[in-house]
Amino acid sequence: MRLGRIPWINCYPVYAALDRGLVTVDAELISGTAADLNDLLAAGELDVSVVSAVEYARNAAAYHLLPDLAITCDGPVHSVVLLSRRPVHELDGATVLRSASSRTSALLLELLCRHRWRVRPKFATVRAESTDLEALRGFPHDAVLVIGDAALMLAAEGRYPYVVDLGSAWKDWTGLPFVFAVWAARREAEHGAVQRAHRALLASRAWGLAHLDELADLAAANTGIAREVCRAYLGDLDYALSYRHLAGLTDFFRRLAQDGLVPDGSLSFITAA
Amino acid sequence: MRLGRIPWINCYPVYAALDRGLVTVDAELISGTAADLNDLLAAGELDVSVVSAVEYARNAAAYHLLPDLAITCDGPVHSVVLLSRRPVHELDGATVLRSASSRTSALLLELLCRHRWRVRPKFATVRAESTDLEALRGFPHDAVLVIGDAALMLAAEGRYPYVVDLGSAWKDWTGLPFVFAVWAARREAEHGAVQRAHRALLASRAWGLAHLDELADLAAANTGIAREVCRAYLGDLDYALSYRHLAGLTDFFRRLAQDGLVPDGSLSFITAA
Repeated sequence: MRLGRIPWINCYPVYAALDRGLVTVDAELISGTAADLNDLLAAGELDVSVVSAVEYARNAAAYHLLPDLAITCDGPVHSVVLLSRRPVHELDGATVLRSASSRTSALLLELLCRHRWRVRPKFATVRAESTDLEALRGFPHDAVLVIGDAALMLAAEGRYPYVVDLGSAWKDWTGLPFVFAVWAARREAEHGAVQRAHRALLASRAWGLAHLDELADLAAANTGIAREVCRAYLGDLDYALSYRHLAGLTDFFRRLAQDGLVPDGSLSFITAA
Repeated sequence: MRLGRIPWINCYPVYAALDRGLVTVDAELISGTAADLNDLLAAGELDVSVVSAVEYARNAAAYHLLPDLAITCDGPVHSVVLLSRRPVHELDGATVLRSASSRTSALLLELLCRHRWRVRPKFATVRAESTDLEALRGFPHDAVLVIGDAALMLAAEGRYPYVVDLGSAWKDWTGLPFVFAVWAARREAEHGAVQRAHRALLASRAWGLAHLDELADLAAANTGIAREVCRAYLGDLDYALSYRHLAGLTDFFRRLAQDGLVPDGSLSFITAA
């Protein structure tokens, strides 16, 4: 069994206890960005992985969701931000760079531009991980969508006058939480092994949620981002998938399907262990 | 295997081919109102049944949903109506009778009164099937919530000045479809048998949706309701459970959980056959 993980701060609460051997799982852990893991799971190189919410919608027929586990926010998410030189209502025809690392954020931005702000920017997809920020500054652009640790770093620099948190923008628009990532298993993966991995992830999350202060220290040490920023970030994320989160997830999918951005479909979960 | 069915018009498209032997299922069919079937499934007397959406939310831990099958509307539902002697905004303190036959409609009305119309009526639960309409007229009341065939009959009489279609009221409020009923299986039911029943229900639905004119004729003959009313009713119902419907369902559950009317939870489906 191969299990995908994202080495970003937002995944610390789910994976830290596995990393420390406090919870064990009979699987090889493979690290990558959400976009990397999306493709590896689609290719059958992973059996279970955290993936972009939108990736589930694109491959729903091949995957089952793991119940009660997701990366969600209900208001600010901090790590998915549009940094802009103009107000969002003035982005018509503007050049907006989008990080290649997340498909969900890219499509959320597309829905917001089209239906909420009613502007049609020109989008360009670029590498925008923490190590790419210097190169990013050299690209001509009016706004840039950055995600993950890179977003926390770039937002902290204060170089852009307009900063839009996409979690807050979704909440203002719909009143709902937003689900950025889910855990999916390939349908042909052995069911018992998937259930054991699911149990391990839930146990690891329980440890993580009880140790957010410690994880914020670690995040600050690993990234150089201020400790209080890391702590506020982890505190605003929610890793559950209850009715409120499902309402946000399915409302997002419904809007995407309506615009032809993902195939229409339904949700399918593994049986809870 | 025991399979529940509701003998109302809205279930004709799903069960007619089974009733006619055009599609076979290795199960005993048990007929009852949604409320009857809710309790029989909860008691373990049925293995699979159509149940009120809210009944699933109340017993989510004991049930799995059958994928891609539900009774939904996206705007008027025709058969779930509040018939009132006053405008809905003037129902504060008024006596509102509610049919005992559906829990989902009763709670939808409760949400609408509380959060949409901001009134607090006094609710009384009464029997309001087609055969109870004479008795119903004798009860003092300001408004009455009737559902199913009885609603179509009573609405056609035109005795109440204010008629609110609860499907339309939900759509105006949320912009979403409403899911009135779903098909659920008890978790301990044999999985292969549940999958076979699911396949039979989907095959029967395919036949039903291709024969709505014929089913409207049958509905008119069985109930005395005008044929055109029956045909419009069947045409406005949708029996799928895609993202749009799931968005409506989870938004309803989220609102109910927020008000403490159902326990918070998640969705769990059987693996599609």
